[in-house]
Amino acid sequence: MHPETAHAEKHFEQSETLRDIVIGMSDGLTVPFALAAGLSSVHSVSNNIIITAGLAEIIAGSIAMGLGGYLAGKTEIEHYDSELKREYREIEEFYEVEKKECRDIFAEYGLSKESQEKIVDELSKDHDKWVDFMMRYELGLEKPDIKRARQSARNIGVAYIVGGIVPLSAYIFTTQPINGLLFSCIITTACLFTFGYFKSKVTGQPPLQGALTTTIIGLLAAAAAFGIARLFS
Amino acid sequence: MHPETAHAEKHFEQSETLRDIVIGMSDGLTVPFALAAGLSSVHSVSNNIIITAGLAEIIAGSIAMGLGGYLAGKTEIEHYDSELKREYREIEEFYEVEKKECRDIFAEYGLSKESQEKIVDELSKDHDKWVDFMMRYELGLEKPDIKRARQSARNIGVAYIVGGIVPLSAYIFTTQPINGLLFSCIITTACLFTFGYFKSKVTGQPPLQGALTTTIIGLLAAAAAFGIARLFS
Repeated sequence: MHPETAHAEKHFEQSETLRDIVIGMSDGLTVPFALAAGLSSVHSVSNNIIITAGLAEIIAGSIAMGLGGYLAGKTEIEHYDSELKREYREIEEFYEVEKKECRDIFAEYGLSKESQEKIVDELSKDHDKWVDFMMRYELGLEKPDIKRARQSARNIGVAYIVGGIVPLSAYIFTTQPINGLLFSCIITTACLFTFGYFKSKVTGQPPLQGALTTTIIGLLAAAAAFGIARLFS
Repeated sequence: MHPETAHAEKHFEQSETLRDIVIGMSDGLTVPFALAAGLSSVHSVSNNIIITAGLAEIIAGSIAMGLGGYLAGKTEIEHYDSELKREYREIEEFYEVEKKECRDIFAEYGLSKESQEKIVDELSKDHDKWVDFMMRYELGLEKPDIKRARQSARNIGVAYIVGGIVPLSAYIFTTQPINGLLFSCIITTACLFTFGYFKSKVTGQPPLQGALTTTIIGLLAAAAAFGIARLFS
């Protein structure tokens, strides 16, 4: 493994955690912010109700997203296991068909008939290794990690809570919904922009573009929620 | 490609769309349900406010999830393109190192030294095919589809709206929050159970277990939201 590959793999591990935080926090900043904005447009609603609704949303959202993330990870593991079993079964039941399939893979890469046969004959001697190759190549699957699934759930859930507290805090420190909305817009826009900027920077995309995209989604969601709430209240 | 593989690949395409719908609808059923349940516990809140808050949440959530899904797809494409460039660059700059890396892959599968050399010599003749192999094998990456990203965004967003309307409808057809909560619990529990059952059935997991898990997450989120709202109101 040369240095660049090692670097890339470290980068990848970091980006798994980062991806979780990004998923949780961007939704956390956006949805409670938009909900609070929507409720601000309703005449009879006080800051107290907005905060209560916001906290209810944050706790529900963090459970749904956190557990959702955990279950997605568990499903991935179950999918891997069932595909693994299928691959072993196919090797037993359709031995020659599987060998031909494997030769065809190398044929597509322009390898000679002789090489195709040689590779597959050697590869098919060890069934475990053969299955491992087919899993990685045909299905692009690596064995997923249950610990990752648990970490992922925690990261997403906590990030959602942290993100959600930000827009809500404005309603705690003001007394009128309209003032809460104003300060909430200011601090959340600043956070969405900063967060979008660093998110893009770490994932290697143009930071300014990422900052603008993240901010626009948040404001769009808030504007839509404000409009819908005004329409139906 | 023998019949079982063709079947598996068709299955995979369906499961992409299904996954989107599952993601959107399970969150749609859960979060607005829990938010409404939370608000029901607050003394001064009317059905009208619950419906307004619910609709604001649904529209904000569908925008955040739908656009989130679209951007995740776009990021995947950008990631693929940057990895592709890196792989081409490495082949140019570290030609021998890359050849050795490629031989090592086959060495791990127990292939003979002779086979390793033969394969890699033949494979490295065509740079496009070589890069394609390394991308698929080393990174498990297939070229993602921009059309998929757009479809995915639409599926998730619409599924979230459809899922969210279900628990909210109970508050439309009742006049007191407590009655709304009661009917909302009944219809949402039934939907979560049914939805969890079919979701697991189509993804090949034990349906009853899946139905129970989905239902429990939804009820857990609602109970937590109810508790938090009562605590802070």
